[in-house]
Parts: sequence; structure tokens; C-alpha cells
Amino acid sequence: MSLSTRIIGIDPGLRRCGWGVIETRGNRLTFIGAGTVTPPVDGSLADRLAALFAGLGVVLDRFAPEEAAVEETFVNAGVRSALILGQARGVALLTPAARGLPVAEYAANLVKKSVVGTGHAGKGQVELMVRTLLPTADFKGADAADALAIAICHAHHRVALQRLRASA
Amino acid sequence: MSLSTRIIGIDPGLRRCGWGVIETRGNRLTFIGAGTVTPPVDGSLADRLAALFAGLGVVLDRFAPEEAAVEETFVNAGVRSALILGQARGVALLTPAARGLPVAEYAANLVKKSVVGTGHAGKGQVELMVRTLLPTADFKGADAADALAIAICHAHHRVALQRLRASA
Repeated sequence: MSLSTRIIGIDPGLRRCGWGVIETRGNRLTFIGAGTVTPPVDGSLADRLAALFAGLGVVLDRFAPEEAAVEETFVNAGVRSALILGQARGVALLTPAARGLPVAEYAANLVKKSVVGTGHAGKGQVELMVRTLLPTADFKGADAADALAIAICHAHHRVALQRLRASA
Repeated sequence: MSLSTRIIGIDPGLRRCGWGVIETRGNRLTFIGAGTVTPPVDGSLADRLAALFAGLGVVLDRFAPEEAAVEETFVNAGVRSALILGQARGVALLTPAARGLPVAEYAANLVKKSVVGTGHAGKGQVELMVRTLLPTADFKGADAADALAIAICHAHHRVALQRLRASA
């Protein structure tokens, strides 16, 4: 394990896919970058997924994270919505994995609990805590905030995960 | 439009993803190749999606199709199944689109109707008609047969689609 590790968090979505990159060194977290990939809404589904893949690829090339974390989305809006979200989520998981990055998944309420302290936090609370934990963070939008929260959650859990794997 | 066009049909799935390549020239269809990509079942979801992406990539490199067609899967097994299938389907749509291929989507009953003549055909009937329409076809398994049926469906519909687009 290197002294510092660069982590990308991804909040999957076909219209807006949030991403946030942080660096973790011991207990110290540093903001590196965050934003949103917004594939065009008027193309074919395949073209929109290709735009998501290309957009996330540019981010991975630019910031060179070593590990990735993606939110395990809970869908309560029916089978059709689940299928659409699943398609975007598949690309969000694939893009870092295809470059050889390990990709962890975290349930939405675990992400909230890691960052805010409760699994039932609202969007505003998550963003506020992200800005508190990463004082130099410079980003816009709830999707980027959520993606940074996922990266923070992974920073908190990865050491425990590695110990589990090492002992398995 | 070139005189002959090479088409890949893809039947998406995380455990078994069928693919079938045909060539269409006028009304004549020729079998080129077919098979199944089977990502390992024991890896992480991200690794399994990366294996699907890599496996389909090898097929695209080897057979160099110019157009792709993917089945619009109907899911009646709940939100969780839809999310899982969506993830595999996202990768199946993305892989050819990321290489610049146009990707068409067809509903399952339209595929059956194109190949068998009725939207309510069983798996056995589809495979039988695929083998009748492509006498030189050499493949194993229902997933490869379904993928060839999707490619045949696209061969039947692509000219009409192109006319529609040209007049739009």
C-alpha cells in the first residue's frame, strides 16, 4: 500500500453522473477534483452510454485514481427505471474496472452514515459535511457532492476491507 | 451503403451473453460466426462487467461488424433483476457504440416475429428457424441462436430504418 491513495467516487446516472476524486493519507483527506458527466439527452441509448464511458474515461485519465467506489443505488420507481439506471450503473462500474482499478460498492445509507453520521441524511446535509471534511473542495451540484461522499465512505472503509481480504 | 453489411446481434446477460455475426447482401444472409461470452461468476460485479466488455471486444475485433443490434429485454422478475440485467445490457450496448458502430434495439417479440413469423415463438422454434435461414450456421446454445435472430431481425429492418432516417 502506498502512503497516499487517490480514490474516485462515482454517483451513476444517465443524465447526470457525478464524480469526485480525493486523496487519502492516514486519516487525512484532500480534495482533488469533482464534477458531473452529462451525456447528450437526444442521442440513442447506446450513444448516450458511449458518451458516459468517454466522459468518465477523460476524468480517469486526467486524475489517475488508484481505486474506485460506486453507490449501490436503491431503486423504488419500478422495473423500467431500474433497467435504465442499471444500464448507466453498468457503464459506471465498467469504466474504472476496464482500466484495472478495483471497484468497491457501497449502499446509499452507508455512504450517508459514513459522512453525516446517520443513514437518513438529506442531500443538503451530505453536501454540507462534504464541504466540512474537504475544506478546499471547489465544486458545484448535488451529484458531485454525492460522488465525493462515496469517495470519503470508501476512504473510511478500504483499510478494514483490505485487512479482511488479507486474512481471508 | 456498401453492397454487403456485416451485422452483430447481441443477447445481453451477465452470466451468458450471446453474440452472432451475419452478413447481409440484398436479400441474402450469410452466417459468419456465433458464440457466448461467459464472464466468471465469482468476481466482483465490476470485474464481471469488465470481462463482458473485454469478451465482446475480442468478438468485435475478430469479426469487424459494421452495425450492431441488441434485444430490448423485457423484465418481469422484479426491480432487483431489472437492475442486474440493466448493468449487463448497458455494457452490451456500450461496447459496439464505443467503437463507433450504430446500435439498433429491437423488442423481443419483434425479433421472434421477424424470424419465426409470430411474436410468441418458443426458444426451440427460434433456433430451428435461425438454422433454416442460415444453413451453414455452426453454433451451440440458445443464447447464440437468439443473438443470430436479433442480427437477422436487424437485417430485415435496417433498410426501412435507413429510408426513414434519410427522409427525416
